[in-house]
Amino acid sequence: MFNIALFGAGRIGQVHAVNIERSPETTIYSLIEPYEVYEDQFCAQYPQTKRQIVEEAMADDNVHAVCICSSTDTHADLIERAARAGKAIFCEKPIDLDLGRVRDCLGVVNQHQVPFLLGFNRRFDPHFLSLKKALDDGQIGEPASVIITSRDPAPPPAQYSKSSGGMFRDMTIHDLDMARFILGEDPIAVTAHGSRKVDPAIGEAGDIDTSVVTLTFPSGAMATIHNSRRSGYGYDQRLEVHGEKGMLQVANLTENLVSRSTDTGQTGATPKYFFLERYERAYVAEWQHFVEVLKGEAPCCSGIDGEIALTLADAALESMRTGKTVRL
Amino acid sequence: MFNIALFGAGRIGQVHAVNIERSPETTIYSLIEPYEVYEDQFCAQYPQTKRQIVEEAMADDNVHAVCICSSTDTHADLIERAARAGKAIFCEKPIDLDLGRVRDCLGVVNQHQVPFLLGFNRRFDPHFLSLKKALDDGQIGEPASVIITSRDPAPPPAQYSKSSGGMFRDMTIHDLDMARFILGEDPIAVTAHGSRKVDPAIGEAGDIDTSVVTLTFPSGAMATIHNSRRSGYGYDQRLEVHGEKGMLQVANLTENLVSRSTDTGQTGATPKYFFLERYERAYVAEWQHFVEVLKGEAPCCSGIDGEIALTLADAALESMRTGKTVRL
Amino acid sequence: MFNIALFGAGRIGQVHAVNIERSPETTIYSLIEPYEVYEDQFCAQYPQTKRQIVEEAMADDNVHAVCICSSTDTHADLIERAARAGKAIFCEKPIDLDLGRVRDCLGVVNQHQVPFLLGFNRRFDPHFLSLKKALDDGQIGEPASVIITSRDPAPPPAQYSKSSGGMFRDMTIHDLDMARFILGEDPIAVTAHGSRKVDPAIGEAGDIDTSVVTLTFPSGAMATIHNSRRSGYGYDQRLEVHGEKGMLQVANLTENLVSRSTDTGQTGATPKYFFLERYERAYVAEWQHFVEVLKGEAPCCSGIDGEIALTLADAALESMRTGKTVRL
Amino acid sequence: MFNIALFGAGRIGQVHAVNIERSPETTIYSLIEPYEVYEDQFCAQYPQTKRQIVEEAMADDNVHAVCICSSTDTHADLIERAARAGKAIFCEKPIDLDLGRVRDCLGVVNQHQVPFLLGFNRRFDPHFLSLKKALDDGQIGEPASVIITSRDPAPPPAQYSKSSGGMFRDMTIHDLDMARFILGEDPIAVTAHGSRKVDPAIGEAGDIDTSVVTLTFPSGAMATIHNSRRSGYGYDQRLEVHGEKGMLQVANLTENLVSRSTDTGQTGATPKYFFLERYERAYVAEWQHFVEVLKGEAPCCSGIDGEIALTLADAALESMRTGKTVRL
Repeated sequence: MFNIALFGAGRIGQVHAVNIERSPETTIYSLIEPYEVYEDQFCAQYPQTKRQIVEEAMADDNVHAVCICSSTDTHADLIERAARAGKAIFCEKPIDLDLGRVRDCLGVVNQHQVPFLLGFNRRFDPHFLSLKKALDDGQIGEPASVIITSRDPAPPPAQYSKSSGGMFRDMTIHDLDMARFILGEDPIAVTAHGSRKVDPAIGEAGDIDTSVVTLTFPSGAMATIHNSRRSGYGYDQRLEVHGEKGMLQVANLTENLVSRSTDTGQTGATPKYFFLERYERAYVAEWQHFVEVLKGEAPCCSGIDGEIALTLADAALESMRTGKTVRL
Repeated sequence: MFNIALFGAGRIGQVHAVNIERSPETTIYSLIEPYEVYEDQFCAQYPQTKRQIVEEAMADDNVHAVCICSSTDTHADLIERAARAGKAIFCEKPIDLDLGRVRDCLGVVNQHQVPFLLGFNRRFDPHFLSLKKALDDGQIGEPASVIITSRDPAPPPAQYSKSSGGMFRDMTIHDLDMARFILGEDPIAVTAHGSRKVDPAIGEAGDIDTSVVTLTFPSGAMATIHNSRRSGYGYDQRLEVHGEKGMLQVANLTENLVSRSTDTGQTGATPKYFFLERYERAYVAEWQHFVEVLKGEAPCCSGIDGEIALTLADAALESMRTGKTVRL
Repeated sequence: MFNIALFGAGRIGQVHAVNIERSPETTIYSLIEPYEVYEDQFCAQYPQTKRQIVEEAMADDNVHAVCICSSTDTHADLIERAARAGKAIFCEKPIDLDLGRVRDCLGVVNQHQVPFLLGFNRRFDPHFLSLKKALDDGQIGEPASVIITSRDPAPPPAQYSKSSGGMFRDMTIHDLDMARFILGEDPIAVTAHGSRKVDPAIGEAGDIDTSVVTLTFPSGAMATIHNSRRSGYGYDQRLEVHGEKGMLQVANLTENLVSRSTDTGQTGATPKYFFLERYERAYVAEWQHFVEVLKGEAPCCSGIDGEIALTLADAALESMRTGKTVRL
Repeated sequence: MFNIALFGAGRIGQVHAVNIERSPETTIYSLIEPYEVYEDQFCAQYPQTKRQIVEEAMADDNVHAVCICSSTDTHADLIERAARAGKAIFCEKPIDLDLGRVRDCLGVVNQHQVPFLLGFNRRFDPHFLSLKKALDDGQIGEPASVIITSRDPAPPPAQYSKSSGGMFRDMTIHDLDMARFILGEDPIAVTAHGSRKVDPAIGEAGDIDTSVVTLTFPSGAMATIHNSRRSGYGYDQRLEVHGEKGMLQVANLTENLVSRSTDTGQTGATPKYFFLERYERAYVAEWQHFVEVLKGEAPCCSGIDGEIALTLADAALESMRTGKTVRL
């Protein structure tokens, strides 16, 4: 049984808590959560949990691994401390919003050779994995184009734009990683366009809410990412790969399988509302993979993947600002 | 060029008129239509059309074939006259609502050996034909079950029930024919259930508006027909065949390919509203087949098909009344 | 925390074991399993489990409820013993294959007034529940027809036919219950047809493998159930309700959301293979409901539902044998 | 009745010939076709057709309108001659591949004030028109993004690249026009990426076969066009508009409505193979519109639309070559 120190009892921390407990091989050993209200709520739900501060958790030999779900600006620091303490690390994306900071942090991880899994949750989604497998099995031959659609149901508060590092670093980063993951190669050029069509306050905060990003790859393949902070119909998460012999697509996961036919047409359910619902099974599989990492398997998504995704997000920002394609 | 005498300028007569003219090998030679208003309208649209009465048309050597689209109670008489006059015959279903009358009429047709095509339009639908071909090609192995759904968009006036011979003879008869056509064998038993759920006036007129009919076949295959005089969402025309290795289905043809996703779900278009729209291409193919019949090909749907379908409809009526399966 | 005595560690027992443990309010207290190999395997997986024989479990005051997942022929006896011992009862369907035995058994349950939930799992499926809610909300007006399709992926061994009570009592019974559940009324007549199209050995064992059952209801509504012991493409579980204003449908739950477009067409995934996969969420919800029953809520599916479903299955058998509709 | 002089009896000329004859208000008066074999074939099919050379047709007072379906390099010259002769003009796209030539040609048309309809056939497709109507009716609020997918089934011969003006001027031009048509505004910037993934010979001919083009509009809306010279599954013609309140989509039109479920999944038909099949109804509607233009209605798609689309195609080419967004 691996004892897990959980950093952060917010929305995503609670998702992982359920999966940590559901696994027969991991248990929540301690919680490190600065807000007492959250801490109390969590410990009421998981009464065996020890309350710790960062220093205690890092020094505690009973802690085998850390699960970092705290606010973004604490990630790099916690990763470095955990690496120095010899703990295995699961960290929610991103490592940091600053590329220099990311590189320094990963240097520490490398130096201490601790297992490190970065939580790009979509890589664990069974539907995307089925598509990836079909592609790798040659079902459509060599891929030529990837088209990713990712639209949030509704925009976050405008002030979130600042702390999140902006749309490309916060939202598009998942799709940038997915494009690399699907094609199995790294882009050589990035072109990006952004627009404010959802909320003027997002524009005032210096961010965009609608974007198109195009990546080109050494093989000549291209990937296009369509993002919006607002869909109006739930979490729109589609993926399409076009190859020599045809096309593979992942459709949206809907709330239910019911449709209604009336004189206004045939109506099916909306997509699942947001990421917690859409990627429920991905989070379970992600944690199962981390359990394998704890037992010695190589992580399928590590620090370098976080670094490359952030590099691409930064390049997208530069491209949007200059109106030029950025070569990498 | 074959000259066609068209009997009846009503809704279905006009459908055939378009196709007669569209074919480079047939032309509307004359119209026989008792209602002067209809006659005038038609001749305004097709100015080259000769106006004839029945006797003239039958005696006119320039008439190569008749297209019978007049009211149901005139069909058998017109068929007999045309057969005696040596004309090739296309007749809308049904031949007659009385089985004895049908047999007598077909006796005359046989005696005079004229080409006779009965208008079971659905046999010419490209979608049902694609399914039939896939089935005959062995794509799902030997068939075990056929499920036919046929729902009209909205009920006819209650008084129509009387002149139409009732739901089984008027509406279900198409599906009874389709079940035979798909399976390529004749049923040995019929069981039927009917209900009045749409319009009480239909019940008062002695008819039903909702029904389930089950057929069993010598091979052990079964067919079930689901009918309703009202769908609420257009003309519901679906077909499903289940066999050793899987299932074949024909979906509804919809008004268009547009869907709308909003917070109430994803809405696609309704099915085409009714038979003229749904079977537009079937009517074209039906007439093309009749042209081949005129040139010597055997009709794919002849008098015997009309007779058997009516026999099955009568058996359904008996089964519904007695609560027993009727063996044939 | 409610202690559960689990009877049977077979396939379905293991499904419930997972859900018992997943619930924060129930735990597996003991296992009663006659086959030592199964018992050992189970206890290796759930090491805290006490091994008991029937008498011990019934006499043990620490047992708050029983979860009966043993072979069908033991159900009625275990229900009676548990009722006499004052335990709350969750029992997999059926109560028994003999209607008289079912009635006697339910008499004992009534006498002892213990909570009793019968495991018609499909009543807890979120998709069917969404349809039921839409229907009850009046989205299509008053229902006129229900069409249920239930096809197993592949037939059971022919000898299973005997112990299972035959297709109607074993398989169709779920659909008979579903028709009542959806329409909220009890049928007044049953008509059934059966055929052997899948495996001749099933016929030799006196059973059928393909069937159509039609139910009529006091409101005039009708329900038709299409069953087959073999689909060739996974577990086909569809439901369609047709009403005054339109239609509601539940589609199949597929293995994944991937489709592939090539020159042979667009191919989506098969339906989930069988009931454990298709109704995974229903089993979770079913157990959650049983927890509410343990806390005092009325069970939504009780003995009378089992009795009526078996009555309908018996009537279907009689109808098939006599070729007559059976009035109830 | 309007007499039409048809220029060109190739594939597209024959499509229009059928529709000219199908309309009760137009007839094929004469054919101008340099290749005698084509001319003979056509006149065998339409025996009433007069054979003319260009000069005769332009001088013939019986010719009310010209239908220009000849090779691209003859379009501008024929348009000018027809304009000078006072004929109404229907011309297949493009006017010319050179923007200067297009402007000169349109200058002549304007000077002579003849009716001019340019054949951007997709504007007449009933499905795209349904989407456009839904958008204009405000069903999804103000549009933010348009995504157009257009993939040919299989690549043309590599030498076609030269005469066609390259992929952007030949293929993408339809989508550039569609983006303007849907959004009802003109782009202010174009960014384009191209790749050779289909046929190396296309690359050797200096052209691309796979591309992504992004347009930005004054409103802040963006449009992305995904093109490929090869789909592997038929003619992929999809359109998606995303707005304030949701999304509108046009799906592919498939060969038929049949699907097959087996242990390898559920397979539906491929999209219609290519433009003649996919846009059959659009060509009918396009000609019907031209008949209205002949009767005095303003053409919905005129010279300026051809000029703007070519301007955008040229800008796409420049963007691809420079790696910069081209401002207009």
